[in-house]
Amino acid sequence: MKPTPLAQTQFLSAQDVATLVTRVGAAATLSRMADYIREDFLRWQDFDKCARVASHSAGGVIELMPISDAKTYAFKYVNGHPKNTQVGLPTVMAFGVLADVATGVPELLSELTLTTALRTAAMSAVAARALARPNSKILALIGNGAQSEFQALAFHHLLGIEEVRLFDTDPAATEKLLSNLAHTALRLIPCNSVAQAVRGADIVTTVTADKTNATILTPDLIEPGMHINGVGGDCPGKTELHADVLRGASVFVEYEPQTRIEGDLQHLPADFAVTELWQVLRGQATGRTHDAQVTLFDSVGFALEDYSALRFMRDAAQELGIGQLVSLIPELANPKDLFCLIRPSAKPVLRSAHTAAQALADLQELALAA
Amino acid sequence: MKPTPLAQTQFLSAQDVATLVTRVGAAATLSRMADYIREDFLRWQDFDKCARVASHSAGGVIELMPISDAKTYAFKYVNGHPKNTQVGLPTVMAFGVLADVATGVPELLSELTLTTALRTAAMSAVAARALARPNSKILALIGNGAQSEFQALAFHHLLGIEEVRLFDTDPAATEKLLSNLAHTALRLIPCNSVAQAVRGADIVTTVTADKTNATILTPDLIEPGMHINGVGGDCPGKTELHADVLRGASVFVEYEPQTRIEGDLQHLPADFAVTELWQVLRGQATGRTHDAQVTLFDSVGFALEDYSALRFMRDAAQELGIGQLVSLIPELANPKDLFCLIRPSAKPVLRSAHTAAQALADLQELALAA
Repeated sequence: MKPTPLAQTQFLSAQDVATLVTRVGAAATLSRMADYIREDFLRWQDFDKCARVASHSAGGVIELMPISDAKTYAFKYVNGHPKNTQVGLPTVMAFGVLADVATGVPELLSELTLTTALRTAAMSAVAARALARPNSKILALIGNGAQSEFQALAFHHLLGIEEVRLFDTDPAATEKLLSNLAHTALRLIPCNSVAQAVRGADIVTTVTADKTNATILTPDLIEPGMHINGVGGDCPGKTELHADVLRGASVFVEYEPQTRIEGDLQHLPADFAVTELWQVLRGQATGRTHDAQVTLFDSVGFALEDYSALRFMRDAAQELGIGQLVSLIPELANPKDLFCLIRPSAKPVLRSAHTAAQALADLQELALAA
Repeated sequence: MKPTPLAQTQFLSAQDVATLVTRVGAAATLSRMADYIREDFLRWQDFDKCARVASHSAGGVIELMPISDAKTYAFKYVNGHPKNTQVGLPTVMAFGVLADVATGVPELLSELTLTTALRTAAMSAVAARALARPNSKILALIGNGAQSEFQALAFHHLLGIEEVRLFDTDPAATEKLLSNLAHTALRLIPCNSVAQAVRGADIVTTVTADKTNATILTPDLIEPGMHINGVGGDCPGKTELHADVLRGASVFVEYEPQTRIEGDLQHLPADFAVTELWQVLRGQATGRTHDAQVTLFDSVGFALEDYSALRFMRDAAQELGIGQLVSLIPELANPKDLFCLIRPSAKPVLRSAHTAAQALADLQELALAA
């Protein structure tokens, strides 16, 4: 019998990831995450893809988003409950796993609530770098909730956006954004209406949370050359754009089968032409062809982005020594002898004592630091 | 703004669950878990069900198994890698989550490797109590790997099985089982062939691990009145029974759409009649009608059993004070202010310090005990 390899799982808590991002810096995190996403989108054909598996209820949705290449499997658990903020909980909460395809060992378990906001913003920037006019300087940001600061920073650091025009139906949300980004070089301009925010913008991001078929952008608001980054319409019955806004634009998507169900695209007939973004990134399809063209990224969030984000988190956590090991999987001297774990004469499993000691050391350090 | 409720997740590690089962006792654990399973199967219509989502690779499969009722959502991550034992890893490893449907908060994260072996055995017993002849005393157990002891104990404690006849192509597996169950009142009889083990048995359990279309039971081995508990054939291309064994029996399944793809049933035409077990448990369909009838439970493992097992683990852990809290989800004073976690001026999140202190105390106790 060969010695048992460690089947331990690296765990990154919500606090671990916050520490990681603070230490790496928001700009560098977004930039590196965008690189990971782009790298994975460039090898799109390597992945076994499926639309997410959703469980809908009256108050929201819980989804599982699996994806795999030949080496690494990833999945994300994520909910969407628009009324959660009324009880003090985030609308979107998530966690995810990276596993080894060869053995099935779950190698990383990480929070993905904060990470999802970062990866969505990084994805928006990857798309906009391919689709928006070069030298875009002004962003309209409609919806100033939990994800908005990440969007603003991604466009600032990754595209050179200098001015962000803000609108939210909840003025407190806009106030929060103004306060959170006061330390940056961005010009932040609160607006009284969507129309005021959008007028003259190079890029428009919609990132609202209501689970309704809303019409936040109408065709009269769209100006030639704009790039529209539609983030909040990401679920059946949850849309943000008037169908004619899509009809008047060149529309790009992550994974077409999923976006047809979940994106703003759900209002258009099945033969409405769209282009998958990976094809543009690889040079196999045309993105923007001229300055007056309206481009639209109908973003719903695809499992591959979480795969990329988890890869980044694993690498960055290893660089910085963040996180701890947990025993999701039992350690067995003989892998066919699972019963030894509960045999009345069972001796303590030595590796667990090792784990406890290691975790203890980690936690003592954390307790001292807190 | 209302105060933020705790969005912490109860975590049960592999060692926690081993401790729990040892303290509750294997017999009581199997008995209570069978009660939880039966209780949930009796309200079958309350659940939003789907076949599991599988990602197949050359060496195995990784699956997600979600299920939900109006109150609680559950999913299991589970792999199946038959060659894992060659590198010292279990063939099947698993973990899972219970979440609140109303908010999406993941309330429990638990190991499910040990738990899956227990729940599969409890499920086998629930089915056999409904389908096997009363006063069954002799079990043939074909496949003496990781799950076999749990099967033997479930049939011993929940059905009154007194004698278990053992066969495995690997004699070391049988030796391990003999040693692990030496402390019980079971008569354990190693056999030289499947035929020898099966002859005269009241119940036959097949629980082999090879991912092949094997033919472990052939029609000539089947005697009138036998109950066949087919556990190991649970995946496309992984079967144990000759098709004529199913043709000669009354066949019962967990969730028909899944079993048609994954069970031994995969070799039979789509119109081959089967009965879902919940209908028998509820008295809506007939189980065994006479002593000479051959009954067959084509078990593949359904998400509802993991839902039940997770419910049991949560309740038992609470009774015994086992486990610790982890921060999968960030705690936010303002749920729309996710960015506060990485704002340059961000103060430490107090609740994480609380968690660290609590986990520290738990681990100190564990380290002392080890």
